[in-house]
Amino acid sequence: MELGQRLLEGDKKAAARMISLIENDDPHALEILSESYQYTGKAKVIGITGPPGAGKSTLVDKVVKQLRARGKTVGVIAVDPTSPFTGGSILGDRIRMSDLNLDPGVFIRSMGTRGHLGGLSKATLGAVKILDLLGKDFILIETVGVGQSEVDIVKAADSVLMVMVPGLGDDIQAIKAGIMEIGDVFVVNKADRDGADRTKMEIEMMLDFSHQEWRPPVSMAVAVNNKGIDEIVDNLELHLTFLEESGKLMENRVKNSEMEILDLSQTALLKHMTRSDDNRAWLRGLAEKIARRELDPYTGSQMVLDKMITQSIGGGKDENTES
Amino acid sequence: MELGQRLLEGDKKAAARMISLIENDDPHALEILSESYQYTGKAKVIGITGPPGAGKSTLVDKVVKQLRARGKTVGVIAVDPTSPFTGGSILGDRIRMSDLNLDPGVFIRSMGTRGHLGGLSKATLGAVKILDLLGKDFILIETVGVGQSEVDIVKAADSVLMVMVPGLGDDIQAIKAGIMEIGDVFVVNKADRDGADRTKMEIEMMLDFSHQEWRPPVSMAVAVNNKGIDEIVDNLELHLTFLEESGKLMENRVKNSEMEILDLSQTALLKHMTRSDDNRAWLRGLAEKIARRELDPYTGSQMVLDKMITQSIGGGKDENTES
Repeated sequence: MELGQRLLEGDKKAAARMISLIENDDPHALEILSESYQYTGKAKVIGITGPPGAGKSTLVDKVVKQLRARGKTVGVIAVDPTSPFTGGSILGDRIRMSDLNLDPGVFIRSMGTRGHLGGLSKATLGAVKILDLLGKDFILIETVGVGQSEVDIVKAADSVLMVMVPGLGDDIQAIKAGIMEIGDVFVVNKADRDGADRTKMEIEMMLDFSHQEWRPPVSMAVAVNNKGIDEIVDNLELHLTFLEESGKLMENRVKNSEMEILDLSQTALLKHMTRSDDNRAWLRGLAEKIARRELDPYTGSQMVLDKMITQSIGGGKDENTES
Repeated sequence: MELGQRLLEGDKKAAARMISLIENDDPHALEILSESYQYTGKAKVIGITGPPGAGKSTLVDKVVKQLRARGKTVGVIAVDPTSPFTGGSILGDRIRMSDLNLDPGVFIRSMGTRGHLGGLSKATLGAVKILDLLGKDFILIETVGVGQSEVDIVKAADSVLMVMVPGLGDDIQAIKAGIMEIGDVFVVNKADRDGADRTKMEIEMMLDFSHQEWRPPVSMAVAVNNKGIDEIVDNLELHLTFLEESGKLMENRVKNSEMEILDLSQTALLKHMTRSDDNRAWLRGLAEKIARRELDPYTGSQMVLDKMITQSIGGGKDENTES
């Protein structure tokens, strides 16, 4: 429990270490998270997403500084594609260079989207809990891209800031349609570019079709010049107040907890099936039959589930740890 | 088996109907797929992806026409964000307008990324099998976005065409780093724009770090003017020939089958847990405890797995209730 204790005392190094352990699906770290989970839930979690090229990283940088100016401590988790060739992480390099790292009230961590032994969602939500335990008032999760897994991660936040940008070509219509529903607060960044007014108007029009209790505000910003950041943070605070006063904060957290346990169960199933050499060889055999068309994948998946059940009876519930 | 028979006879309407049934996770349609799986595997599957704004849809349109000019029949599956407000699909509208629909040798289908009862991956891979049964020589899967789920779907193809574009801003470095590994053939589209040569050079440099048997070719195109399409299709054919001659086609298909059965098993687990009212109420109860910090999600997910196992023993796979 030493690491857990150090976390609660605000030790940044302990947090960094814990996140690495969670990324590697370390059973002891999961045990610490499990035991200290009761102390989480205090931080407000903000998801930040939007299409590539929207300038999310610069905007996050400025939002963090604004929150700091308002006396809040902040944790940032940047979910980030990892280079398969260099083994490094481009956003990671960027983050290491940020002057925010000099501020003791800020903790920044970039997490690659590849190679998580226990699943990306599990690792990211684990990191959120760790920063919560570390005592951060706000935790920002930034995702690049507009994919389903990335959207799912951002949806686990209390409030979602959607960063749009003028003139990204044809696909932007499709992107907007796909991610509009999850935005609680919108901003048109790079608003000094041509077409910013039109982009804002298009977003407002799409929001007109939605009839929810909360009407997402849409503001303009030029993050690189620090313009419009105040208003973004005001809007996020307004939304969080709305969530608390309407009882929706708890309602959403129940929904998110449901998603999280289902996701953890699915990840555990995958791990179970690929853990032992025997299981992997058996699975490989099934896959070979399927590739040769001697077996179909639907029957194959039923065999996987049956095997999991049989093993759990025979071998006892060895799912927890291997410490 | 009537639908299955009609599929094998090349009936487009049967294919459209089957895909809708698979999207709705219809058990009878899955049974048909299961039984007719032995007749699949003839089509070559090409995944096409790249960042938003790269002009993938126009490029796909031209590639299809080029394949038709070479005497091949083609199926297209466009994986596509669906608007939550209109209930429609923007790419779907685009596709309905395409003149390709008039060609009896082409079948086009757009699939939304939301609301698949059985999971997006399951639905997409099901649609591939259906178009394979329909007798298409080539099946193209186009995904918008660069997310993990979308990348996973494209990875299930025999060959992946990566569409890049000059000047998409900072994020493009990160995107390139994240998706380079899955490209077998690269094209810089919109190559009449400034910076096309530089983009090509950057891709070549990244590929220099990779030492695989197959060196992905990088060509230039201006799809909207039908320029460079020939070379893309030549490169794809070269890669497919390489796969067959090196034995890698079967090797990759074994890997993909393994991914598919694991994915199907995970989807089945999710379905199992959310099927009955009792199960859903029980799950909701767990989630409420977790949101109130009376239970942690790691212990909760273990309870989900335990319950699944118990139900399968007690209720004989057709679970109704359980304490």
